[in-house]
Amino acid sequence: VLLSTLAVKSQRGDVVRISELSRITKVPIPSIKYYLREGLLPPGETTAPNQAAYDERHVHRLRLIRVLVEVGHLGIATVREVLRAVDDPTTSLHDLLGIAHRELGPHTRDGAPLRDEVAEVDRFVEGLGWRVGRAAPGRLALAHALAALRQLGWGASTDGFFPYARAADKLAAREVKSVSRGSRAEIVERMVVGTVVFDAVLIALRRLAQEHHSAMRSG
Amino acid sequence: VLLSTLAVKSQRGDVVRISELSRITKVPIPSIKYYLREGLLPPGETTAPNQAAYDERHVHRLRLIRVLVEVGHLGIATVREVLRAVDDPTTSLHDLLGIAHRELGPHTRDGAPLRDEVAEVDRFVEGLGWRVGRAAPGRLALAHALAALRQLGWGASTDGFFPYARAADKLAAREVKSVSRGSRAEIVERMVVGTVVFDAVLIALRRLAQEHHSAMRSG
Repeated sequence: VLLSTLAVKSQRGDVVRISELSRITKVPIPSIKYYLREGLLPPGETTAPNQAAYDERHVHRLRLIRVLVEVGHLGIATVREVLRAVDDPTTSLHDLLGIAHRELGPHTRDGAPLRDEVAEVDRFVEGLGWRVGRAAPGRLALAHALAALRQLGWGASTDGFFPYARAADKLAAREVKSVSRGSRAEIVERMVVGTVVFDAVLIALRRLAQEHHSAMRSG
Repeated sequence: VLLSTLAVKSQRGDVVRISELSRITKVPIPSIKYYLREGLLPPGETTAPNQAAYDERHVHRLRLIRVLVEVGHLGIATVREVLRAVDDPTTSLHDLLGIAHRELGPHTRDGAPLRDEVAEVDRFVEGLGWRVGRAAPGRLALAHALAALRQLGWGASTDGFFPYARAADKLAAREVKSVSRGSRAEIVERMVVGTVVFDAVLIALRRLAQEHHSAMRSG
């Protein structure tokens, strides 16, 4: 819906040349041209034989591309796939989250040798009452963690995951609520940034909290 | 303390050859020889001109080396540094945690251009009442996250970190408590595994919980 009107001049009339688009978005002109050639960014309106005009929808799209590339570390082909899903109004927001999760990783190896662990994780997730697709990459990541713990000789079971599940549940309830405002492009931008940047925030805070509690114990 | 007695024959008398050591620990003989050459694994007791005997302390040490290499993805020089700290009784458990954190990453780039963000994070951590060293890598990671959010045009402040800090605080209290049993080598092993494997567990569960809450909203 958004994309189909992108070639049309912005109704607000804020139409700019590529140099200005670059200045506003801080994306270098060669990168903008690359995204245009790759079909990630729709062409501007041709205003003269060698000149095109861009509007604020190009600004938004460029922002989203940069988030996917710079924050999500996605390759161009994957960016194209995500943008296609964003532009396809039949793709629900829930499906968009699934696509973002699948593409953003963390990517785990094949789970075929982990049949027991995958089955245990499935029972664990079911026990939590969570509605999660069979193919959600998080399931496989948990199975790999379980297998790693066992290989190290730890008598690990999914019981050890409960405190983490409770923490994740609380955070996710907030996150999903806060992400659902605005246009589809904005929502996907928030999903990607929220997923990647707040992974780092959570991991960093866990380290700091461990140091704090360790300091408390050591006196 | 542990190390100084390693060359002595195990009191339990469970002395084995290198082939048996490899079988027990599932570490290939060439890797064991490599760790011996690099000084990570102390030599066994020479029982014949071309034969050495290893005891259960070699088994424990090999386990720890494998955890550092395979789970922590540390290089040999870093493994050596961690082992030296483990073997030095003047290094407190709290300092061991600091060393593990520093080496395990996530490694962030220089924070010099982020003076404002670092100062904000310092105020935030102080506001939480956490006892955390000035050089804790988590501080810099948070400053980078804050800078990334701002560069994306989000009006981000450290306030957005609070729910994550609360979750991290609860988890860390459990983690630090559960890690503090056993020998120093066992504690470090649990620290490294706990840090690396449960990072992955937490991230995976956050994704699954997001999918669940998204499914609940989309009906």
